[in-house]
Amino acid sequence: MKKLLNDPHAYVEEMLAGLVAAHPDVYRLHGETGRVIARADPKRPGKVGIVSGGGSGHLPVFTGYVGTGLIDACAIGDVFASPSVEQMVDAIRAADAGAGVLRLYGNYGGDVMNFDMAGDLVEIEDDIAATTVLLADDVASAPPGEAEKRRGVAGMVYAFKIAGAKAEEGGDLETVTALAQRTADACRSIGAALGPCTVPQAGKPTFEIEDDEMEMGMGIHGEPGVWRGRLRSADEVASEMMDKLLEDMPLGRGERASVLVNSLGATPLEELYILYRVVSKRLMEAGVEIVMPLVGRYATSMEMTGVSFTLCKLDDEMERLLKAPCNCAFWRV
Amino acid sequence: MKKLLNDPHAYVEEMLAGLVAAHPDVYRLHGETGRVIARADPKRPGKVGIVSGGGSGHLPVFTGYVGTGLIDACAIGDVFASPSVEQMVDAIRAADAGAGVLRLYGNYGGDVMNFDMAGDLVEIEDDIAATTVLLADDVASAPPGEAEKRRGVAGMVYAFKIAGAKAEEGGDLETVTALAQRTADACRSIGAALGPCTVPQAGKPTFEIEDDEMEMGMGIHGEPGVWRGRLRSADEVASEMMDKLLEDMPLGRGERASVLVNSLGATPLEELYILYRVVSKRLMEAGVEIVMPLVGRYATSMEMTGVSFTLCKLDDEMERLLKAPCNCAFWRV
Repeated sequence: MKKLLNDPHAYVEEMLAGLVAAHPDVYRLHGETGRVIARADPKRPGKVGIVSGGGSGHLPVFTGYVGTGLIDACAIGDVFASPSVEQMVDAIRAADAGAGVLRLYGNYGGDVMNFDMAGDLVEIEDDIAATTVLLADDVASAPPGEAEKRRGVAGMVYAFKIAGAKAEEGGDLETVTALAQRTADACRSIGAALGPCTVPQAGKPTFEIEDDEMEMGMGIHGEPGVWRGRLRSADEVASEMMDKLLEDMPLGRGERASVLVNSLGATPLEELYILYRVVSKRLMEAGVEIVMPLVGRYATSMEMTGVSFTLCKLDDEMERLLKAPCNCAFWRV
Repeated sequence: MKKLLNDPHAYVEEMLAGLVAAHPDVYRLHGETGRVIARADPKRPGKVGIVSGGGSGHLPVFTGYVGTGLIDACAIGDVFASPSVEQMVDAIRAADAGAGVLRLYGNYGGDVMNFDMAGDLVEIEDDIAATTVLLADDVASAPPGEAEKRRGVAGMVYAFKIAGAKAEEGGDLETVTALAQRTADACRSIGAALGPCTVPQAGKPTFEIEDDEMEMGMGIHGEPGVWRGRLRSADEVASEMMDKLLEDMPLGRGERASVLVNSLGATPLEELYILYRVVSKRLMEAGVEIVMPLVGRYATSMEMTGVSFTLCKLDDEMERLLKAPCNCAFWRV
């Protein structure tokens, strides 16, 4: 395991300690569990809260997007593991400012079970109204007919941004929830993996792959993709990824979309920009106007090698909110 | 070679094409060589220009820092290779707005030779006054007595920011140059490598290293470091790196410094934050006030595994300029 760490069991706590020490103006540790990060600035009474949560190992997702115009609090599990109900309850309380709380997170069984229970608890104990929107944007994880089974991946970033901006400008719980759902429905993602990462506590790579192989459609925790075969050229890979996204959500002349070309960790910016040529060419050929493209590391799996593309189809309000100000340690608009 | 690319000989051109396509509001290709990136916004007559340049493969360095309050143009070589004199001449011309141009770049033989010749040429042919400041911040690359032999690494980021802000607010060539030199003199860096990257045209890793080994002090192109040995814990590595920096540039009570905890590429944010705990503890114990710490990927070697730390000792003016607004695709203040 080629990592700079101390005790693997302290990985998450030490990571959070460093995050808060580096950005005390943005993040604070909240509550007793040591696993909830909340906004450092004071709550604004009457603002709808947005919480997220999930396993560690995906920075900036999820914790990193706590900030102005984004999410208010986040519950953090072990690497690739769900946070506990208690941690999620703490996160919901941290986000609550009297106007209800939206739970906005990825479609993974453990997270769904725990967040549902946490929501029930705060409704009973604290009288906090809690809604849910699940991201399920990974087109490789289930066919269109079973879209509710799909896993949530980098589309989350758009949902945080757009719903977060709406909450910041004073939208009520119903409005913010509806907008988060509209964004979730408008996102499609697909990944391609070249190499694994290592979960510190496990000490071995999440999957094995030959030196000349790649896997199209692999999930961010190493979930099986749609094919494994020889490594193809950047242009071939990008074209196939765009085919799969546009097949699932056709975009035509005059439509507007943002696109995220995301590194899963180790894949450098240079390669993302080589891929972006194809992405922008394909969208322009289809007559789609590209709004605020994102290229970088927005949702990772530590040092995994590979990329993901996310398309987010925009209406006027979503576009306005995507471009609205936000601030966290990893994204400033 | 596990990379998403097409023809390795087209790597740089395709990367630049993607960069400009993704951020047309920030970057534009300038001139005939296809290897100069300049600010997309119109020149402001009378503003001092700042150019940089060097080999590709270090994004966001160098090209990425073309932007408002940063540098004005950049000449880009092949991966880890100097740009040509012709490309540097083009970059200087792109940056010139009638008030002279500062050449601000890292201390590497090829870059120095070509930038000197380029400066001579534009002084003769275009009557552009050109000054030079070299970054030579890597303490592992030569002892203090031979500091002029040191290589330039991530300290460049501070020099771009501070000199760039001074140029943006109207400083003349002498003032901007002096401030860049003050910043270069106030920066100390050191790296630690765990794994190599692959230069696309070479097709094989820049160095070999065992699975349980690391190398302290290795340069960003794989230049030899100060020791190679078994991989140590994050806290041990961070402590030794801080020892070496503070030995070279002691900082005491009441002094102010920024610190950059930088991934060389593959090392994830999680590990950077684990390391940051030690960095901040050491500086606080010494009574040093940490100003605007930077944690992330600011100067990389593609998918190299490892980190670097940079300390930048600040005076009042440098601190003000570090906090001044800037905008490029990778850094917004």
